[in-house]
Amino acid sequence: MARRKDQIKLGAFLLFTGHHVAAWRHPEASVGTEFENYLELAKLAEAAKFDTIFFADGVAARLKDLDAASRKAHSGIYPFEPITLLSALASVTRNIGLIATASTSFSDPFNLARQFGSLDRLSGGRAGWNLVTSSDPDAAFNFGHDAQVLHADRYDRAEEFADVVLGLWDSWEDDAFIRDRESGRYFDPEKLHRLDHKGRHFKVRGPLNIPRSPQGRPVVVQAGASEPGKELAARTAEAIFAAQITLDEAKAFYADVKGRLGKYGRSPDDLKILPGIFPVVGRSEAEAEDKFQALQNLIQPEVGLNLLSQLTGVDLSSYPLDGPVPPEPPVTNAGKSRQELVLDLARRENLSIRQLYLRIAGARGHWQVVGTPAQIADVMEERFENFGADGFNIMAPIMPGGLADFITLVVPELRRRGLFRSEYEGTTLRENLGLKRPANRFSAGNAVAAE
Amino acid sequence: MARRKDQIKLGAFLLFTGHHVAAWRHPEASVGTEFENYLELAKLAEAAKFDTIFFADGVAARLKDLDAASRKAHSGIYPFEPITLLSALASVTRNIGLIATASTSFSDPFNLARQFGSLDRLSGGRAGWNLVTSSDPDAAFNFGHDAQVLHADRYDRAEEFADVVLGLWDSWEDDAFIRDRESGRYFDPEKLHRLDHKGRHFKVRGPLNIPRSPQGRPVVVQAGASEPGKELAARTAEAIFAAQITLDEAKAFYADVKGRLGKYGRSPDDLKILPGIFPVVGRSEAEAEDKFQALQNLIQPEVGLNLLSQLTGVDLSSYPLDGPVPPEPPVTNAGKSRQELVLDLARRENLSIRQLYLRIAGARGHWQVVGTPAQIADVMEERFENFGADGFNIMAPIMPGGLADFITLVVPELRRRGLFRSEYEGTTLRENLGLKRPANRFSAGNAVAAE
Repeated sequence: MARRKDQIKLGAFLLFTGHHVAAWRHPEASVGTEFENYLELAKLAEAAKFDTIFFADGVAARLKDLDAASRKAHSGIYPFEPITLLSALASVTRNIGLIATASTSFSDPFNLARQFGSLDRLSGGRAGWNLVTSSDPDAAFNFGHDAQVLHADRYDRAEEFADVVLGLWDSWEDDAFIRDRESGRYFDPEKLHRLDHKGRHFKVRGPLNIPRSPQGRPVVVQAGASEPGKELAARTAEAIFAAQITLDEAKAFYADVKGRLGKYGRSPDDLKILPGIFPVVGRSEAEAEDKFQALQNLIQPEVGLNLLSQLTGVDLSSYPLDGPVPPEPPVTNAGKSRQELVLDLARRENLSIRQLYLRIAGARGHWQVVGTPAQIADVMEERFENFGADGFNIMAPIMPGGLADFITLVVPELRRRGLFRSEYEGTTLRENLGLKRPANRFSAGNAVAAE
Repeated sequence: MARRKDQIKLGAFLLFTGHHVAAWRHPEASVGTEFENYLELAKLAEAAKFDTIFFADGVAARLKDLDAASRKAHSGIYPFEPITLLSALASVTRNIGLIATASTSFSDPFNLARQFGSLDRLSGGRAGWNLVTSSDPDAAFNFGHDAQVLHADRYDRAEEFADVVLGLWDSWEDDAFIRDRESGRYFDPEKLHRLDHKGRHFKVRGPLNIPRSPQGRPVVVQAGASEPGKELAARTAEAIFAAQITLDEAKAFYADVKGRLGKYGRSPDDLKILPGIFPVVGRSEAEAEDKFQALQNLIQPEVGLNLLSQLTGVDLSSYPLDGPVPPEPPVTNAGKSRQELVLDLARRENLSIRQLYLRIAGARGHWQVVGTPAQIADVMEERFENFGADGFNIMAPIMPGGLADFITLVVPELRRRGLFRSEYEGTTLRENLGLKRPANRFSAGNAVAAE
């Protein structure tokens, strides 16, 4: 195949104890939930020249099944809120991009634009906003709602929310602040622009009361794979955290999303697609398999069954663990296609209930690769060269060891193949991701684009 | 007089170029609006063992009079948003308290509780929330409103907002997280508490998805001096940034607020009163006066008149600058008592319009002391010993020089008098301010207090 001219982008998806559902019980995982634990991870990733660190987020503890929740580190209870955590990391890192998740469903566009704009300036132009809409039924109850916001309305709000935030980030032109002591002119009123947005969900006058950042504005990241999610991403996102498992699915998703950019006047390079990968690395296949089994053995049945039910809507908690998966188990209202996929798998391979949850729960439904550095580099290279990915979001099974393994063993292999950088290209996140610095919509020459 | 047994608390109120309205034009002021400028100020204050650094905030650029605004650094345009800025400072400081302003009028209690809770954990228990309500007419337009929220409704919302935030901060008992690898118990469900708040303004189920901090929860700070403001402070605040100018006013305010604590079951020590002071320090009186005049000479008439109108509601922009203040000038709807105070002053001292705005504009209406280190220490000691203050919020005229002057010249004088610490008492903000660590309302023994 023709080799791509660009290189793989790497993000470290940081979850305090690691991405394996039982990571926190592993003797080598950090139970640490202190700032120092995150600092160690950020420094590891930056020393390895990763493009970004990234934090997921949610605005509710997920305690529906309280007994199972009390056995998991990942129940929507985070040691820190991501915008504050990344701000704290901004002042003790230099090059790495800082991407935080924040929901359009339960925040306000003026406050969000301002906080991300501030993080972007604090970090010298290294911030990214992972725009999500919230589907967590628990979250709505923390924000005055009686029930979850409906999906269609969520995306309608998200579209308008993104427009307001992007508009506010252009409130000031890059050279609006003169600060000339002699003449006493602090800013040029001609380079200040009110937004005067009036829409279905928001009415926001502006301007944002914070200057523009060195990279123009934070990088917009998204993760939605639904039809409205892909459309919103094609119009506004600059990176996507994708979740496809097979190469074919990944290629189809990549082609689908990149193909939508043209109608918004954007080029395929304006959006980077970064699938998540859960790599279990060993010096030999056996070592990798042993590492994985050690983690799998720590999964408690309550947790496995609860995660199976959460991810697929199939509730198997009333059946014997080592008995067969019943042909027609009770289901909740989660996605039908995912349920059939899981039940087909159980039938095909004749799995017990315990075997089934072990297949699903470990990597919490993500793309999982257990192998040697060369084997892992192979699948990454394959997915990259075949346009299934522009890079990857590394979901280390345990922290910090799993991330250190990837960096020590897989990153050098990627470098040997010419697939990953040895030095940062620039100082801003846009420079490193290969994204152009967006012009201010109101600057001379862009006036038409603003209409 | 009987000497007080406690010592003066000191806060550094940081405003990037300084608190004098023309500070940014001074050749020795930092025009810097970069993170490094704030870091320098935070390190200065921490090396001097200040209790806190503090940032004001607003959620709108104040551009009503665009021409005057374009000549001021202080037009509601901040280089950074305070929660992100203090988070960035948290990881590069060790002891100093970090107080950020956030408005109950234009934010959400769950998000706010979570971000301040996160900052408190990131900093090892050094966070404070300056609870304000917004009276800025520009702010409402950034949050979907057609006009400013009315004062009475603002405080009604603030009262309930504070209850929700304080309640969410007690979602988890201090020892709720077990993280026992062997038994696989991550947290104890008995030590988790839902808030289930249902009020006039908010409906919030909880729990907050973040653990409690080393100091229990952030310190609550307020600044309101209105009747509902004082009542809210007496019920919920642990520090007040006061703004009285004369000793008599300060003593009256102190006695008034401290006298209200009893009915909420609180002791006078549970709330520290910290007036702002704008100190211009010189080695001699003449040097101090020269420093002050150098700043005064930089005030542009547009800025002086605009500030006069903003602070007092008296609009003198259509009269000759060096002519007399007219007996009945046009007034806007700002506070009547303040207008009469200002017009009385002009009549009594026969001031020209320029002279009048120079009297008001420099320190932007705050308590201003121009003098030697001994003179400044004298008035601080007097106010402290006479129970007009528990400490002070230092509003340096220019940054960093004015703060450095105070630290180099006045702080040693306070130490000689036994009025200020040489070492931090503890690691948390509460330990240094002499505030007790609040018990969790839900912990055994406190169950009654929660009702």
